[in-house]
Amino acid sequence: MTGERMTTDEREYLDAFEAVSRFGATPRRGVDREAGTPADGEMRRWLRGWLAERGFRVGTDAIGNVFGLIEWTPGAPFVLTGSHLDSQPLGGRYDGAYGVIASACAAARLARRVAAGQAPPPYNVAVVDWFNEEGSRFPPSMMGSSVFTGKLPLEAALAVTDARGISVADALDALGERGDAPAPAVRAYAEVHVEQGRVLEDEGTTIGLVTSTWAARKFDVTVDGEQSHTGSTVMADRCDALVGAAHLVLAVRELAQRHADGPLHTSVARFDVEPNSPVVVPRRVRMNIDLRSPDPAVLDAAERELDAAVVAAQAAAQVEIHRVPTHAWDRQPYQAAGVGLAREAAAAAGLSHREIMTIAGHDSTNMKDVAPTVMLFVPSVDGVAHNEGELTPDGDCLAGVELLTEVLARLCAGAEIG
Amino acid sequence: MTGERMTTDEREYLDAFEAVSRFGATPRRGVDREAGTPADGEMRRWLRGWLAERGFRVGTDAIGNVFGLIEWTPGAPFVLTGSHLDSQPLGGRYDGAYGVIASACAAARLARRVAAGQAPPPYNVAVVDWFNEEGSRFPPSMMGSSVFTGKLPLEAALAVTDARGISVADALDALGERGDAPAPAVRAYAEVHVEQGRVLEDEGTTIGLVTSTWAARKFDVTVDGEQSHTGSTVMADRCDALVGAAHLVLAVRELAQRHADGPLHTSVARFDVEPNSPVVVPRRVRMNIDLRSPDPAVLDAAERELDAAVVAAQAAAQVEIHRVPTHAWDRQPYQAAGVGLAREAAAAAGLSHREIMTIAGHDSTNMKDVAPTVMLFVPSVDGVAHNEGELTPDGDCLAGVELLTEVLARLCAGAEIG
Repeated sequence: MTGERMTTDEREYLDAFEAVSRFGATPRRGVDREAGTPADGEMRRWLRGWLAERGFRVGTDAIGNVFGLIEWTPGAPFVLTGSHLDSQPLGGRYDGAYGVIASACAAARLARRVAAGQAPPPYNVAVVDWFNEEGSRFPPSMMGSSVFTGKLPLEAALAVTDARGISVADALDALGERGDAPAPAVRAYAEVHVEQGRVLEDEGTTIGLVTSTWAARKFDVTVDGEQSHTGSTVMADRCDALVGAAHLVLAVRELAQRHADGPLHTSVARFDVEPNSPVVVPRRVRMNIDLRSPDPAVLDAAERELDAAVVAAQAAAQVEIHRVPTHAWDRQPYQAAGVGLAREAAAAAGLSHREIMTIAGHDSTNMKDVAPTVMLFVPSVDGVAHNEGELTPDGDCLAGVELLTEVLARLCAGAEIG
Repeated sequence: MTGERMTTDEREYLDAFEAVSRFGATPRRGVDREAGTPADGEMRRWLRGWLAERGFRVGTDAIGNVFGLIEWTPGAPFVLTGSHLDSQPLGGRYDGAYGVIASACAAARLARRVAAGQAPPPYNVAVVDWFNEEGSRFPPSMMGSSVFTGKLPLEAALAVTDARGISVADALDALGERGDAPAPAVRAYAEVHVEQGRVLEDEGTTIGLVTSTWAARKFDVTVDGEQSHTGSTVMADRCDALVGAAHLVLAVRELAQRHADGPLHTSVARFDVEPNSPVVVPRRVRMNIDLRSPDPAVLDAAERELDAAVVAAQAAAQVEIHRVPTHAWDRQPYQAAGVGLAREAAAAAGLSHREIMTIAGHDSTNMKDVAPTVMLFVPSVDGVAHNEGELTPDGDCLAGVELLTEVLARLCAGAEIG
């Protein structure tokens, strides 16, 4: 990929991605721009400017989703494409941001084709930056697309507070990022994302055609002990919530080892200790548990084993443990016709491709339930994700933009995908 | 203890203790008033008023220690007595506060004796409320007495910040509680505290004569992993700091079980996970480890076993663990002459008594290194400490005030204690 062989379209993508990577940039080439932070606000203003310069009509809705619309056929529904610009703390520059920039560039290419004389298609195109896909500051994740698809009430989302008590509404207002743009009517949705796994890289394949999600079960867990003095309290009298929670963390890890053939992925990632004072035996730990597998039967078995681990941890630490399910989904298919359309477009573009499942949730996971949806992956080096070291080579990124452009062209032209 | 049989002195103590227990009171009869909070500020103003009404000259020093002085003999050094009014989050009403109120009442009784015609003693008396003994909001614990005794530089203490980034200096300034009172010259120090253990209660003894501290070793530990995606990252690739830390929490608990005859008390009580996002494998855990025993040889053995546990946890979770010693002390004696003086005073007052060690640190642990010190315990029901359910019966509290009054009288009169 040398400068002299690069097209104007390719240069536009690389410049835009370089520009967006500067917002919240970290010394180790990652980004740190959680939803609703100043870095997020600056980046959103930059995106609106980029889109407006290219003739998009820009707007922001009541939960902070940013839209850029090209309306060739007044009143016709839109083919919507996008992802999210927010990141995890010390996250990678590709996760989400790649999809937004790829979508913006692909839509801009279509707009230039029409401006250059090509017949306008019957359906319009729109780009979206979904608010707060990551959910690290304001849970749950996929907040903007959940509100857009009616899965989460707007008022509930606006009332969510971060660890310092700042609400989503306050954070958006502080940035001037709570708007009143109406939701565009959506004919279809398309998203491209980095894989966050190793399948494509290990096989040397450029494009993943996402056929379904893994199944997942998520829980909030509270471990209740009794606070006491770390020095003077007799050991036998202690009801240490941290000891109980540590038993559970290790039990959750052991589930994954026991079901390695499932496969089963398990984690505890949020973990808050009260009162968190160096001389007070912890009275409470609040933690999450996340179980994921392509096979729902493996999740059923893991959940039964988790029940037994809870009983054992309660006895070992003299604590009470409450486990509340917060999210559960079985293996969810994307529309087969969308996979077929993407396969044809990839073949036409001469890009190597294979079907693949997504383990992570994406905004497309929400959108597929309300509109025909195409979900595409490009490779992730070593599968590194939610880490500053995340990397996808420029060539793979550009291949994804090229494919997304062709997918959007087919969808705007009226291809039926279910 | 019925109203009609109560003396004026007893009534004064009970009223004062009832009054102080209202600051930061919780529904379950505990208190929640960490150092430098508004509740702490109100309580300190109340204490200064109480002392001033009784003829004490009140002042606050540069780290927020509150003093009340009675100067019978101009220029003579003071017998200082006190404890701390701050509490742990959801702590008990007796821990520290009992000692301050007992000291104030005991000193006030001596002042009234002189006012009523008794010859003034050669040494003066002063009451102190040490700032931030608990250290839960602003570590380390025993901050005010550490600065007073020259063990912690004033500027370092003022610069300590809480979890929200507020410094000690800012917290004190916001309350108007940073003063410039000079340190009184100290001839001797006396403190009474609830036992926070079961020894006195189990034996039916009223007074503990503290002879020494347990030995202790404290550490700050950092567990470094690598952040990644909780969903998509292959389990074998994860370097999960929380899994490593959980191994270590359980290993620390096992140390106590292995050395139960020591005895050995162990804990992990402060535990912070980064980035603490539900979908990011934790990259770092910061935690403390606290080991205490009356036998330093047991601590030596435990520390060697802890090294082995660190190696095992690193391998099990693919993490790096760094353990830094922060505090270490061997069994530290209180001056034998002080124990003897207290024993004589207890016998004269007809109070049952026994020698005892303290497991917890106290402001007297600092003071004994710069002045002859007497440390007294009264019983704790069920040994409950750092908990809203903490309780010492009024009769035991009043016995402690009576004994402290006699100890102060002997110290002010010139009794030699080392």
